[in-house]
Amino acid sequence: MKAARYYGKEDIRIEQVPEPTVRPGQIKVAPAFVGLCGTDLHEYLGGPNFCPTSQHPITGEAIPVTLGHEFSGVIKDIGPGVTGFKLGQTCAVQPTIYCGRCAACESGAENVCHDGGFIGLSGWGGGLSEAVCVNATNVFPLPEDLPLETGALVEPLAVAWHALSAAPEIGPDSTVLIIGGGPIGLAMILCLKAKGVETIIMSEIATSRQNFAKQFGATQVVNPLSDDVAKAVRDLSNGRGVDVSFDCAGVPASIKSACTAVKAKGTVVNLAIWEKEVPFNPNWMTAKESTYKSVLGYRRKDFEAVIENLRTGAIKPNGMITAKIKFENVVEDGIKRLISDKDNHVKIIVDVNAK
Amino acid sequence: MKAARYYGKEDIRIEQVPEPTVRPGQIKVAPAFVGLCGTDLHEYLGGPNFCPTSQHPITGEAIPVTLGHEFSGVIKDIGPGVTGFKLGQTCAVQPTIYCGRCAACESGAENVCHDGGFIGLSGWGGGLSEAVCVNATNVFPLPEDLPLETGALVEPLAVAWHALSAAPEIGPDSTVLIIGGGPIGLAMILCLKAKGVETIIMSEIATSRQNFAKQFGATQVVNPLSDDVAKAVRDLSNGRGVDVSFDCAGVPASIKSACTAVKAKGTVVNLAIWEKEVPFNPNWMTAKESTYKSVLGYRRKDFEAVIENLRTGAIKPNGMITAKIKFENVVEDGIKRLISDKDNHVKIIVDVNAK
Repeated sequence: MKAARYYGKEDIRIEQVPEPTVRPGQIKVAPAFVGLCGTDLHEYLGGPNFCPTSQHPITGEAIPVTLGHEFSGVIKDIGPGVTGFKLGQTCAVQPTIYCGRCAACESGAENVCHDGGFIGLSGWGGGLSEAVCVNATNVFPLPEDLPLETGALVEPLAVAWHALSAAPEIGPDSTVLIIGGGPIGLAMILCLKAKGVETIIMSEIATSRQNFAKQFGATQVVNPLSDDVAKAVRDLSNGRGVDVSFDCAGVPASIKSACTAVKAKGTVVNLAIWEKEVPFNPNWMTAKESTYKSVLGYRRKDFEAVIENLRTGAIKPNGMITAKIKFENVVEDGIKRLISDKDNHVKIIVDVNAK
Repeated sequence: MKAARYYGKEDIRIEQVPEPTVRPGQIKVAPAFVGLCGTDLHEYLGGPNFCPTSQHPITGEAIPVTLGHEFSGVIKDIGPGVTGFKLGQTCAVQPTIYCGRCAACESGAENVCHDGGFIGLSGWGGGLSEAVCVNATNVFPLPEDLPLETGALVEPLAVAWHALSAAPEIGPDSTVLIIGGGPIGLAMILCLKAKGVETIIMSEIATSRQNFAKQFGATQVVNPLSDDVAKAVRDLSNGRGVDVSFDCAGVPASIKSACTAVKAKGTVVNLAIWEKEVPFNPNWMTAKESTYKSVLGYRRKDFEAVIENLRTGAIKPNGMITAKIKFENVVEDGIKRLISDKDNHVKIIVDVNAK
């Protein structure tokens, strides 16, 4: 079968590899649509980062590995001992790989497993192939009328949904600031709208991303380079500060803005992955006894919640997919386009079966 | 009456000032013992910081102001409308000044009132005088057999007790790291012991403070300059990391140590006041989905809890008072000794009535 495999920096190859066969407890999925994300980009531009250069402690694999960790597909085979699934069923795959034995896993936080990884980055195959065998616990059937294209959005939406769990106080009356209108910041808008939140302030520099934010339902969009973000926050929060700020940018200016924008006893949630240490003043938190949390990935319940909210229509993902490309063109039309034109795209998805 | 008043940097004067009279809702307290703290020291060395140089928004006062915000005393007069107190009763005074109208106060967090201040720093008198009139809500009667000297320790103990509220998950089985063995770090040990916590690791550089920490009940004391703090943490936590770390040091090394020492889903609580921005990597929190909180001051319930725990003997403050000095010598024997010999002292208290 064909697979897009990562060999190292600027080296992704489409090759023929043997098709895997299901083992007990596994399901074989034929990927349909695969989203490309910033992590793929970073592996291509400056990796290997996530992709293991020596034997991964759980998968036992090292590069080359098959890419594609945001994907939907169709169930092609069901391994011994697996019940509750049907051949031909559509599904989304949660790519989380975890050991189940470490202190994090034992405490129910398998998303921060000490040795954790991702299908599509750490081995065990990936969505950018004609077939992948995954544990049945990683497979989430989709509602029958949910398009398979939308199924490829479950993973990035689950990242945003999971971030909500760090601020359980959020409700319809909350005032929220999102910093950074990339795919995750925009997914954050959709998830907050699904929770009924009416006042969502987006801080974003790029005009095209500002337009996406308006289209996705942000109440007010501010440009931190030209607008007074603190004033916008005050105006929309009766002078109190926002209840919760989400840092989806991960730059020195965003952490300060996120921390100083919240109200007394407010919460800052970081979703960004940072390149290095940045200036931080704990007094920002002290003055308001606010809380700084940081989140990583998602858990099963986040996948379940996103699929349910897509089913009911509470999450409206229209507009997230800005390009659909052929498998063969994943590097030229996908990765390289995200590099040259990222502000004009939310999600580029690969149609695995397009001829 | 006599009062020790702060005029500015290195300028504290003992002077005669008019004795205040109680207004409705107030109680006049004759201070008995007054603790000196790092804040007093910073005002003396590099202030004015807290002390208002222009009219304070709540007290309406500016320097000179009477010092002394950690104090016990005896009720000398009771103003109109005040019930539930007796003349001659011993008490501790919570020095919190708050507006009652801002968003923080309205949300029940008067300790982070936007305009907040402290009796003994922001005006309305202070403990370093023969009499001070405070709102009845700031007065906490002491158990009859609790020494007035111990009453002067309620305030610093309440700072530590309040920090516990940021980590409500702490219980007897918790493993805790405290960074910094100054007065607040040591008070933190006493409060954790009162909660039954058995495993308390103290990280401290100064030998004398290490000895205080052992005496106060730390399970293990490590020197971050010569010992492997991370290894001590692993050894005492089955390799998991501590449940909660308390940063009572406020230096670049302490924030990194506090953040990297906690387990998955652990909590970092900052009690330090910081001089400037420091390097911080949000990835420290992301890798474990840990939480960073910062606390300020205390609330009524903290004063109540500390007094109750002193009454029952759960908090054992013996050893906290390392020197008792005369009012007239507050600068020479108090402030200046804290500057020259701080590591050999926990609390220096002023005996207001000593001849």
